[in-house]
Order: sequence, then C-alpha cells, then structure tokens
Amino acid sequence: MTANEPVVVVNQAVTEGEALAAQRAWCSALLEINATYEKEGQAAAKALAEKVIDAAYAYQMGAVLFKPTLTVNPQTFRPTRAGALSYFVGGDPAFPNDKGFALKGWKKCEAVNNAIFLDGNSAITMGKVHFTDKNGKVTTVDKTWGYVRDGAGNLRINLHHSSLEYQPK
Amino acid sequence: MTANEPVVVVNQAVTEGEALAAQRAWCSALLEINATYEKEGQAAAKALAEKVIDAAYAYQMGAVLFKPTLTVNPQTFRPTRAGALSYFVGGDPAFPNDKGFALKGWKKCEAVNNAIFLDGNSAITMGKVHFTDKNGKVTTVDKTWGYVRDGAGNLRINLHHSSLEYQPK
Amino acid sequence: MTANEPVVVVNQAVTEGEALAAQRAWCSALLEINATYEKEGQAAAKALAEKVIDAAYAYQMGAVLFKPTLTVNPQTFRPTRAGALSYFVGGDPAFPNDKGFALKGWKKCEAVNNAIFLDGNSAITMGKVHFTDKNGKVTTVDKTWGYVRDGAGNLRINLHHSSLEYQPK
Amino acid sequence: MTANEPVVVVNQAVTEGEALAAQRAWCSALLEINATYEKEGQAAAKALAEKVIDAAYAYQMGAVLFKPTLTVNPQTFRPTRAGALSYFVGGDPAFPNDKGFALKGWKKCEAVNNAIFLDGNSAITMGKVHFTDKNGKVTTVDKTWGYVRDGAGNLRINLHHSSLEYQPK
Repeated sequence: MTANEPVVVVNQAVTEGEALAAQRAWCSALLEINATYEKEGQAAAKALAEKVIDAAYAYQMGAVLFKPTLTVNPQTFRPTRAGALSYFVGGDPAFPNDKGFALKGWKKCEAVNNAIFLDGNSAITMGKVHFTDKNGKVTTVDKTWGYVRDGAGNLRINLHHSSLEYQPK
Repeated sequence: MTANEPVVVVNQAVTEGEALAAQRAWCSALLEINATYEKEGQAAAKALAEKVIDAAYAYQMGAVLFKPTLTVNPQTFRPTRAGALSYFVGGDPAFPNDKGFALKGWKKCEAVNNAIFLDGNSAITMGKVHFTDKNGKVTTVDKTWGYVRDGAGNLRINLHHSSLEYQPK
Repeated sequence: MTANEPVVVVNQAVTEGEALAAQRAWCSALLEINATYEKEGQAAAKALAEKVIDAAYAYQMGAVLFKPTLTVNPQTFRPTRAGALSYFVGGDPAFPNDKGFALKGWKKCEAVNNAIFLDGNSAITMGKVHFTDKNGKVTTVDKTWGYVRDGAGNLRINLHHSSLEYQPK
Repeated sequence: MTANEPVVVVNQAVTEGEALAAQRAWCSALLEINATYEKEGQAAAKALAEKVIDAAYAYQMGAVLFKPTLTVNPQTFRPTRAGALSYFVGGDPAFPNDKGFALKGWKKCEAVNNAIFLDGNSAITMGKVHFTDKNGKVTTVDKTWGYVRDGAGNLRINLHHSSLEYQPK
C-alpha cells in the first residue's frame, strides 16, 4: 500500500439527514395508507400498513417501544407488531378501542424538530408533528422517534412516543 | 500470560438493573425536592433541583431531548438546563407558565415499565409512572427515558418524554 | 397494563460469552477448512472458506479491517472479501504470495484472552491464539478481533489484526 | 416553537477527521517525549509520558487492549497504565525488558491508513505507521487503534495493537 492509496471508510453513524428522511418517509407512508383506504378500502390499507411497519419499524429485533397518540389502558403500549398494525388501521378484535389512526383522512403530515441526538448507529428526534385532515383541521402531537440502523443499512424505528399537546384547564 | 490468568473485561453495556436504579433515583429525587420545598422553601428546593439535574441529566452534552408532562407552547420542549430547572421548581420569569412540577406535594413515585431497549452504552425505557400526592390522588403519565453512560461511568438522561394519558372524549 | 405484567427487554449488548463463542467458532472453522482440504482438496476447502467468511466476517458492511498474520507488502491488509479468501485458502493469482493459512495442517486452535472490551453492540478481544499443526508444532500469534452484531442478531468480525510474537534479536 | 426555530443537534458520532487528528496527536506526543528525553533526561520524559497516557488512552475505563510492538512474554499485553508507561519510557523494574520505545530517537512519525471503521461514538483505524529515527532509518509497523469518546467529548485510545511487518524467511 502506498500513501496515496484511498482509505476505505466504513461509516455506520446515523446522520441528521438520514433521520429527517426517515421522518418524511413515515409521513408519506401515513398519507399513502389513508389514500389507499379511501380508494380501495380497509383490507388494502391494512396490507399496505403491514408493508410499512415491516420496512420502517424494528419489530424484528423483538419489540418496539411504542406509545401511540390515542391509545388507552390497558393497551396503551404497543410492543408487538400486531398492536402497531391495529393502531394504524384498526379492525383487530384483540384491540377493540382502535379506530385506525392512519384512516382519519390525513392529507398532510409535517415534522418540526426541537432537538436531535445522534449517537453513532442510532438517533433520537423530538419535536412537533402536524397532521392536517381533509377538512383542513390540524392536529399537533409531541413526538419522539428513536432510530437504529439495521443490518441492511436502513434506519428502523425502535422507539415512538406520541402524545397530544397538554391542555391546561 | 498463562491460560489461567484472569481476563480483564471492560464492560460499557448498560444493564436493565442500572436503568431501573436510575428510574428509582429519579423518583427519589423528585420526592426529596418536594420535601425540601415543604420544609425549607423554594430557594432550597431550587438549589437541590440544580444538583439533581446536574447529576442525572446529560445537559453537559449540549442538550437534552425533554418534553415534560405539563408544558405548553411555545415552551413545550426544554432542551436547556434552565428550562428543565424552571419546569421542576418554577420561579423563572423566562418560563412564565411553569408552576414547579416537583413542588406539587408528591409523596410517592413509581415507575412500571412496558419495554426496555438496551443498546450498548445507552438504554431506553417506556412505561407508566404513577405519582401520588399528599391527598392520595394518583396522577399517571406515559413516560420514555433515554439513558447514556457518561465518562465517569454513570447513567445520565439524554431523553425524557412525558405525557398525560390520553382521555377519549 | 398492570404492575406485574412482564417487561419486554430488547438487549442488543454483546456479552463476553458471545465473544468467546465467536472465537471458538473461528477456531473450529479453521480446523474444518483444513480437514476439508486434506480430504477433498483445495476447491472444496475454498467453497467452505467462502461460507465461513460470509457467515463470520462483516464484508457486507463495506470492508473489514483485516491484517492477517503472514501477509506482506503491498498486500498486507485485506479489506476485501477476495483478499480474505485468498489468505485462508490461496490459489488466487491476484494475491501471489498467499499460500493458504487454513491449509497448513492445523489440528488445534485455542484463544487465550488478555482483555475484552464490551461496548454495547460491539466487542473487542485481545490475546494469544495458539495453533497446533499435525506434527505437534505450536505457532502462537497476538490477535485482536472486533465484533459487531448484524441485523440478524449474529456477531460478525469487523476487525482482525494478527501478528507473530515479537522476537528480540 | 416555530418551524424556523433552529434544531438543536447533539452529535456523538466520531468522524474520520477526529480519528486522523488523534493519530497525528499520538505521533506528535511520541516525538515530544523523545525530544524531552534528549534535552531533559528520562525523568522529564516519564513525566510527559504520564500526561500523554492520561490524556490519550482510556485507562480510566478500567483497562486498555494494548499490544505494543516490541513486548515479549509474559508481558506482551499492557492492560494497565503502569505497563503502558513502562513500554514508552522504560525504567520500571516490574517490566525488566522495556527499554522505552519513545526514547529511541524518533524524529518523524506518520500514519498511513488502510481502512477506518466509524461506529457511532467509537472508531477503529488500521494501517501502517512509519517511524524515522535520527539516522534516517525507517521502522514500519502494522497498527490498529480503537478510539472511544470520553465524557468530556475527547477521543481516547481503548485499543492499540502494533506489530512489526511480517518477514518471510
């Protein structure tokens, strides 16, 4: 080897750009599930949601730390893929309170971050996400996403905590 | 070196036990800040809260991803130490809506985890935290904590997302 | 969720036991490649070595930091899969000095560690490895192995530095 | 918070530039210890070496995986600070074979990397390091360095495997 031979660099670090791209992909997938539901019905929306979850979440690692926006006791948390799927598209008798968050007519989804923590092969983002429905009504949530890089080099969500904004009485 | 010489193992991995201990320490500190407030007033409580934040949070890394339970726009997130301190003990004109969460008469604090993610020198926990006040009233929040190991070997909170349970209308 | 519901723990940390098992697997594979060579010839040994490299090394991440024991300039380092394969079984005109380290009649291979560094989803070991050939002659090397966990949960070698012991003149 | 408020990014990832800077700092420190030895003697060189080790190595984590170039059994590995210090400046009766590698008249030290692995808050480099002494004689070693980021944000060496180039007989 000589001094001017190129150095091979293997870089596993998650960049801010990758985290932002993963957020945009999540928003796009949500809108696409809703559009599929409106055009083709719940079964098609569910099939798409399964693909999205399998591609974007890290359930293959054993569990995901997932607290969706609108879940209630005793099913607040959704550590399993089945619980995530039911939350997004409903229709699962095992989760009777789920109406399908992705089916609520969303036309726009935008993440506005407050802070991002990049820790090597993982990243965490925290901020607001604004959802606009077909009537123009905006719902804003406080959202934390954690991402890990999988073996194929893609980011996957291993943490998702979403909550409605606090309303002082 | 011989075959039976002991192997030196440097282990940076965060264990479940360490994460649980950090949760208990957070709860204990909250109760202690409240007790100090009741006995010695706001200034003493504030001094203690500063020590707690400096020991338990990772603000020295540049920022903490912190969404407290009761904050409102435009100060929902508290990436700075000053914002965290104000949230816990109030009294900072820069954060006029903060009443001091740690001063609300808490007598008991208990974390009940749903899932834990251990990723080497960091960990994330998600679950319920139950706060009981002096009148026996219980407030439950959904809480995510992220921990990183600092240079001295201690866990520090780099992520904290807390939210009241969703109330369906 | 109730307080006595089991907590789901996703643990990505590499343990000392996993690192030791990976070392034993490397030694076993080396002996097996040699045995295959003796019984079935170079082509069969090469086919097995390809399987071993693909299962045990992290070339799919882009490169491996590999300094084998017996390589010389200008091909000291073997960041590519082809370079690793040639080192173990020879026969590649692109690496004319390689005789095939795995084909040297090894009957025993034992790692004796000096120190191990466990850093979450990666680990590094350093120590002696003793190779015994069919005549009972022992060759000892100083060896560092780095391991990373892949997407399927298995450890893969991303670092391998091996060197003959220093001989003072 | 508004959409155009700046996002706070905490980035713990080690960059290639940081790893290269750490290599240059190691080389500079080696030359400086030698220069101090030539001007002020062994005691001054030892005092400087202690500072360098305390600033650049990660012995405070419990141990360093260190296989120096010229060590012999049974003291090949130097997991302790005392063993590293003795290797660099000699004079420790507990390590009778150490002559002081840093005192050998080095005037130039240059690292030429083959491959670099960046894994979040750690990095590993592998390549040649060329040492030129006062007579212009060049000694080349194969060297692996592992770096971890400490609590103060600095890189520290947690792994160091150095070996003379293989000489075929």
